[in-house]
Amino acid sequence: VTPLESPHLSPLLPPDNFSMVNTWLYRSSFPKKKHFPFLRTLGLRSVLTLILEEYPDQNTQFLDSEGITFFQFGIPGNKEPFVQIPDDKIAAALCTMLDRRNHPMLVHCNKGKHRTGCLIGCLRKLQGWSLTTIFDEYRRFSAPKSRSMDQEFVELFDTGRVWRLMEEGGE
Amino acid sequence: VTPLESPHLSPLLPPDNFSMVNTWLYRSSFPKKKHFPFLRTLGLRSVLTLILEEYPDQNTQFLDSEGITFFQFGIPGNKEPFVQIPDDKIAAALCTMLDRRNHPMLVHCNKGKHRTGCLIGCLRKLQGWSLTTIFDEYRRFSAPKSRSMDQEFVELFDTGRVWRLMEEGGE
Repeated sequence: VTPLESPHLSPLLPPDNFSMVNTWLYRSSFPKKKHFPFLRTLGLRSVLTLILEEYPDQNTQFLDSEGITFFQFGIPGNKEPFVQIPDDKIAAALCTMLDRRNHPMLVHCNKGKHRTGCLIGCLRKLQGWSLTTIFDEYRRFSAPKSRSMDQEFVELFDTGRVWRLMEEGGE
Repeated sequence: VTPLESPHLSPLLPPDNFSMVNTWLYRSSFPKKKHFPFLRTLGLRSVLTLILEEYPDQNTQFLDSEGITFFQFGIPGNKEPFVQIPDDKIAAALCTMLDRRNHPMLVHCNKGKHRTGCLIGCLRKLQGWSLTTIFDEYRRFSAPKSRSMDQEFVELFDTGRVWRLMEEGGE
């Protein structure tokens, strides 16, 4: 819940590409220290990152002090033709995202454009959105650096994989 | 609340430029009949439109059948130098938006870019967001047709006006 606040001495700074996705999900670019006061207003229960690198101490300390659970599903950016987004990591991330105990959750990568965009696109597919509106949303956040490969990834992603994984009870 | 649904026979179609703004607010372009099944999943309590024209019967009937309250604060688009967005209408719209009895609410104009963008920008200002992040969000939805005039409107908007209006208890 984002409380409505009277004017602050210093303005609240959401991370770049911040947005609400769902009643239980937010997305953004990599949050830095200056964004922490804003993140505090969201009452997050978890943060899920898609970066491969080790999470910075500063961010870990912030999560610890707020009692926010941390999940990392490190995936490389989808840079054709060298790297492909691994389906299994995305499916596992979606399982974790769907778990109500982790809500509200923030998902982020570095820019909040491509990897986050792919993950949210797959979530929208689970929600039954048309590909047209999924791609519109993807491009809204990735423009002017939208990638066909990312959109193709979402189109080809087998959502059944997520349901099967949930039935196995694993992540 | 957007329920997570198993795959539909026909995909859900959110209106163009649809997005969640807050835990209690959505934004979009003008919703047409094909978008109604999607809107139904949001459990809306009200719809606020910024168009000047009379609301189409089809939309009114949808709202009536769903028990959704309708608000209209008709304003012209901000097309310099002929037309200016009226501050008083925006302040009144914000008062209505802040009333919890109307949540969750959908706000829309025609494209969901300029008038809706101005209104959401003023809401973000009330929430204490920095102008930089307010403008980033405005441009995300209005690109490539972003207007400096709209951003200037948000920058100059006197948020105190909203609080004064609320104290008067009027709209």
